Amino acid sequence: MPFGYNGKILRVDLSRKEVTVEEPDEYFYRTYGGGACLGAHYLLKEMSPEVDPFGSDSIIVFAGSVVNGVPVPGFARSAIVFKSPLTGAIADSQAAGYFGPELKFAGFDAIIIKGKSKKPAYLWIRDGEAEIRDASGIWGKTTGEAQDMIRTELGDERIIVAGIGQAGENLVRYACVLNNLKHAYGRLGGGAIMGSKNLKAIAVRGHKKINMKDKETVLSIAKHFSTNFMKESPTDSGLRNLGTAKDVIPQNETGQLPTRNFQTGYFEGAEKISGQRMRDTILVRGEACYACSVRCKRVVKATEPYEVDPIYGGPEYETIAMLGSNCGVDDLVAVSKANELCNKYGLDTISTGANIAFAMECYENEIISKKDTGEIDLRFGNADAMVKMVEMIAKREGIGDILAEGVKRAAEKLGKGAEKFALHVKGEEVPAHDPRVQAHVTLGYTLSSIGADHIRAAHDGAFTPGWIPYFAERVKPLGIIEPLELSSIDHRKIRRFRYFQNVFSMQDTLNLCLLAFLPAFYFTLGELVDMVRAITGWETSLWELLKFGERRVAMFRAFNVREGFTKEDDWLPERMFEGILSGPRKGQKVDKDKLREAIDLYYEMVGWNKDGVPTKGKLAELDLFWVAKELDKHDKYKK
Amino acid sequence: MPFGYNGKILRVDLSRKEVTVEEPDEYFYRTYGGGACLGAHYLLKEMSPEVDPFGSDSIIVFAGSVVNGVPVPGFARSAIVFKSPLTGAIADSQAAGYFGPELKFAGFDAIIIKGKSKKPAYLWIRDGEAEIRDASGIWGKTTGEAQDMIRTELGDERIIVAGIGQAGENLVRYACVLNNLKHAYGRLGGGAIMGSKNLKAIAVRGHKKINMKDKETVLSIAKHFSTNFMKESPTDSGLRNLGTAKDVIPQNETGQLPTRNFQTGYFEGAEKISGQRMRDTILVRGEACYACSVRCKRVVKATEPYEVDPIYGGPEYETIAMLGSNCGVDDLVAVSKANELCNKYGLDTISTGANIAFAMECYENEIISKKDTGEIDLRFGNADAMVKMVEMIAKREGIGDILAEGVKRAAEKLGKGAEKFALHVKGEEVPAHDPRVQAHVTLGYTLSSIGADHIRAAHDGAFTPGWIPYFAERVKPLGIIEPLELSSIDHRKIRRFRYFQNVFSMQDTLNLCLLAFLPAFYFTLGELVDMVRAITGWETSLWELLKFGERRVAMFRAFNVREGFTKEDDWLPERMFEGILSGPRKGQKVDKDKLREAIDLYYEMVGWNKDGVPTKGKLAELDLFWVAKELDKHDKYKK
Repeated sequence: MPFGYNGKILRVDLSRKEVTVEEPDEYFYRTYGGGACLGAHYLLKEMSPEVDPFGSDSIIVFAGSVVNGVPVPGFARSAIVFKSPLTGAIADSQAAGYFGPELKFAGFDAIIIKGKSKKPAYLWIRDGEAEIRDASGIWGKTTGEAQDMIRTELGDERIIVAGIGQAGENLVRYACVLNNLKHAYGRLGGGAIMGSKNLKAIAVRGHKKINMKDKETVLSIAKHFSTNFMKESPTDSGLRNLGTAKDVIPQNETGQLPTRNFQTGYFEGAEKISGQRMRDTILVRGEACYACSVRCKRVVKATEPYEVDPIYGGPEYETIAMLGSNCGVDDLVAVSKANELCNKYGLDTISTGANIAFAMECYENEIISKKDTGEIDLRFGNADAMVKMVEMIAKREGIGDILAEGVKRAAEKLGKGAEKFALHVKGEEVPAHDPRVQAHVTLGYTLSSIGADHIRAAHDGAFTPGWIPYFAERVKPLGIIEPLELSSIDHRKIRRFRYFQNVFSMQDTLNLCLLAFLPAFYFTLGELVDMVRAITGWETSLWELLKFGERRVAMFRAFNVREGFTKEDDWLPERMFEGILSGPRKGQKVDKDKLREAIDLYYEMVGWNKDGVPTKGKLAELDLFWVAKELDKHDKYKK
Repeated sequence: MPFGYNGKILRVDLSRKEVTVEEPDEYFYRTYGGGACLGAHYLLKEMSPEVDPFGSDSIIVFAGSVVNGVPVPGFARSAIVFKSPLTGAIADSQAAGYFGPELKFAGFDAIIIKGKSKKPAYLWIRDGEAEIRDASGIWGKTTGEAQDMIRTELGDERIIVAGIGQAGENLVRYACVLNNLKHAYGRLGGGAIMGSKNLKAIAVRGHKKINMKDKETVLSIAKHFSTNFMKESPTDSGLRNLGTAKDVIPQNETGQLPTRNFQTGYFEGAEKISGQRMRDTILVRGEACYACSVRCKRVVKATEPYEVDPIYGGPEYETIAMLGSNCGVDDLVAVSKANELCNKYGLDTISTGANIAFAMECYENEIISKKDTGEIDLRFGNADAMVKMVEMIAKREGIGDILAEGVKRAAEKLGKGAEKFALHVKGEEVPAHDPRVQAHVTLGYTLSSIGADHIRAAHDGAFTPGWIPYFAERVKPLGIIEPLELSSIDHRKIRRFRYFQNVFSMQDTLNLCLLAFLPAFYFTLGELVDMVRAITGWETSLWELLKFGERRVAMFRAFNVREGFTKEDDWLPERMFEGILSGPRKGQKVDKDKLREAIDLYYEMVGWNKDGVPTKGKLAELDLFWVAKELDKHDKYKK
């Protein structure tokens, strides 16, 4: 071949204190691409089913992709892939920032981590080499302290650190991993996996240039993006101006801002926790990920009523909704403080907010008492209580120890009917998009192998009215040209969901930024194909790229099937079948019968059998026949 | 929308003597595209199952596509779509030449013909208008006589006529329709359908310009094609120089030239019926279809031992193999005479050759005697007998009356074990590519809804060694990048077959010329997308275009399922499981167990259930939920 993609994969065995380097062939890269598609490949091949996520046989993969690291907006992400201690299912958590590109500059597409270090350790990767180093001195420290100490120890302030805080060390089941203190591989407990392996952090520094077949084309598309973004993004209510917090007001106005543990979708205090309010009060500046011109990340600072340290960034929409409205809290500084603590201790803000909201509803329903909370008045709207709970969860103090297990396990421990307040799918807490309002979200939460995940839910973004056409434009070139109503579920909606899901999953395989890649006018799918071609030199097509998406979804499902998940796990919490209590969407709920029909139709649509197991033929079509053999070995095709 | 595709469909009711015009919306065109994808839509919607193909409820569709008629090589084709009187299954026969473009110039994308004329009639279409005219005077005439008479009657020598000869009138079950006397909508008996409707011909003349959104791009890609073709096609053994007859020698040398009713794949007289021999002896010139620079069509003339009229063109590879080697005949003039007669009487050369070869083997095995043949010595290699049989079939004389029914029915009538010499799939005679040698052909014949069809068999062209890389290049952009052995069937081969099939089916939907579109360097798939976009103005993608392909295949299957076809119909004639008798591929055969496994895997791969019925989910994914409802109505999902 005139040009081949050459990449390296770093393997780390913490038990044996070994690091090795592999160079997969081009066929491998062209099949698995990167991200969780690549990661799932290793989990399926090298990890037995029913492994304890916290055991030494558990594997965690840090994965870039064949295109990450180029100096183009939207290409700065990377993923961590593992068996979630929260759900027992496969997990894919992504973050942008600087870690992904730096890993590529250091010469690696991915890191496969196995085993368990006897003593606290961190991994130091530099220009094609890697070593496991002692982390005894930084164990027990916050993410910020740890980052400082590592940089000082290695004598380079530009080192990029992805690490965990005390939450990960304490095996909080939704502990996250942070890079640069504010870019979170947020959901599903990757931080706890690192904690269980005594792996405090991964430090990376690289000086390698990204190899590009046709740099000129790459840069010209990048320029096109920036021009389009500047021209078309709403300046007053857009990402650059307000960050993702721009969505607070429109979500509330359309009746889908999660409020008081999803009892309603309308929050009277929304304006006080909005992106506009943030801009006008505590915002220091917007920040960008590597090579991005959008600058959607927030940096906030405050002294009253809480001191908020700007090094930990500022809250995203999800954080505001989950720790704010969903806890009934209308104090933006309290939310920002909770966000700071989450980043400091390494906690997923979404699950943290969900667990606190769950606890608040249990408290108001006398399932939890003041005796349990240590005299904290854990009612909705108590900002102090909310902030205090974040600390308690991270440190597993008092009731925090139960909540650190996630709502599913917590409800089981608490009993007394707490289950009905435990809003999760497959064990993952429901994030800040209401599945009762948007059919894409209904289907996404129900059918995702990961659980209730807003990124892979393929929500159609209609919560921000101005964005609707952008989302619709994204799938028009795939032939999805008819406009559809937001909430109803029929065969056409399921089809559109499937197509969206495929596009999203392809973007996730390549670790592309959701925000940069949703509006079709920033990057068209055609430009994306051109970009992949220009970077890798592959004579590829949109068809092949979308097959990445299908392959990733199929491997995720196969992983779960092998772990024992069944059709019964594809379902929503009971509250979603009950009406929203107030607001513009009052009374709206998911129709159970239609959802059941939709699940069956979706299974057939994607090539899964009646039990939800990907068929051998479909797996063969995705060049994953080895996965079919694996499922066969575990009797998953028997009936 | 800034630009929309606007098209017209002509409806003809021969019983009511009515012509009407419809203008489907853009959504329709973007879903069904053209060709047999569009045609199958009408057959499924407007024709009940179990209709007699020769009854007045039977429908035949002449279909162009949204891109046909542009002045670009490869875009001159059109299709006829109907329920085959030979197989009872759906039929898709295509021809290039001039009829398709002329129909577009006259303002129509397709003609839907229903009913039955009381008296012989022909259809006259001119610039957006149409009338049904009396054809009493031309009934009983050859295609050539009929064309002359129509042109004279209408006073325009440039009228394009698609019509039938006596074979169609006599309801020979594989009678064809010819345009310009040498471009055959060949297989499956469309000519007999016209005959049954007393419709002798369709005459078209148009002056409308083809609407193109971006003419400049269209023309620049066309120029690119011509440059590539001139530069890269082998000049000595290529299409321009030898026509499709270029394949005779390489097919023979690789042991897959059907010989003596597929007893062997090596013919000692191959050189005498080769493209090279044709060029050196009887060739008058090469001819081109509309706007094509390839000129692959042959025109031949001879006086000895037969007089061959050049107005009927010359034989293609398939014709030479089926009427030549497969009948053991090594006389190129005899083959050319038989070709002339087939075009004159309107007979499919492939099925005609297959039926004669079948009769010859029956004769040699004493199932047919001289009494049956009218004293003709019907042994393999008797050129005179072969030529005579063509006449007898067209006129249904003597044994010809039985052979006019096709090998399946003929074998049933003859009994005495004739079945084992009747080589057909679903009733369609096996054409000149040996399914024992190429796995793509094995799968194509077995799984095609049409029957044993070499075009839709997605053969991988490896019979012409120089062409292998071109075929492989075609699917590389889809991610099929590994080289595979020719004959073996495994999951990767099935996958590659599926992808080829999809590409072919997409090209068939758009009525693109197989020969112009197989070598990837003439047109890349990317250029095809650009071309469709430039013509229609649609912001489309390769994904959407390939869904045309899937949609067409799914509708074909649904049609057959509704007609009562089952999994049992997906199978090869017994001879294909027996070894080739001699030549380079001596002993080679299809493995029954592997084929059975392949069928099951293929079903799953394309979204069909275990019975081979397209699932509701897959149909919904293709936006064909209405087809699922139709199958449901006929209890096809019950078990």
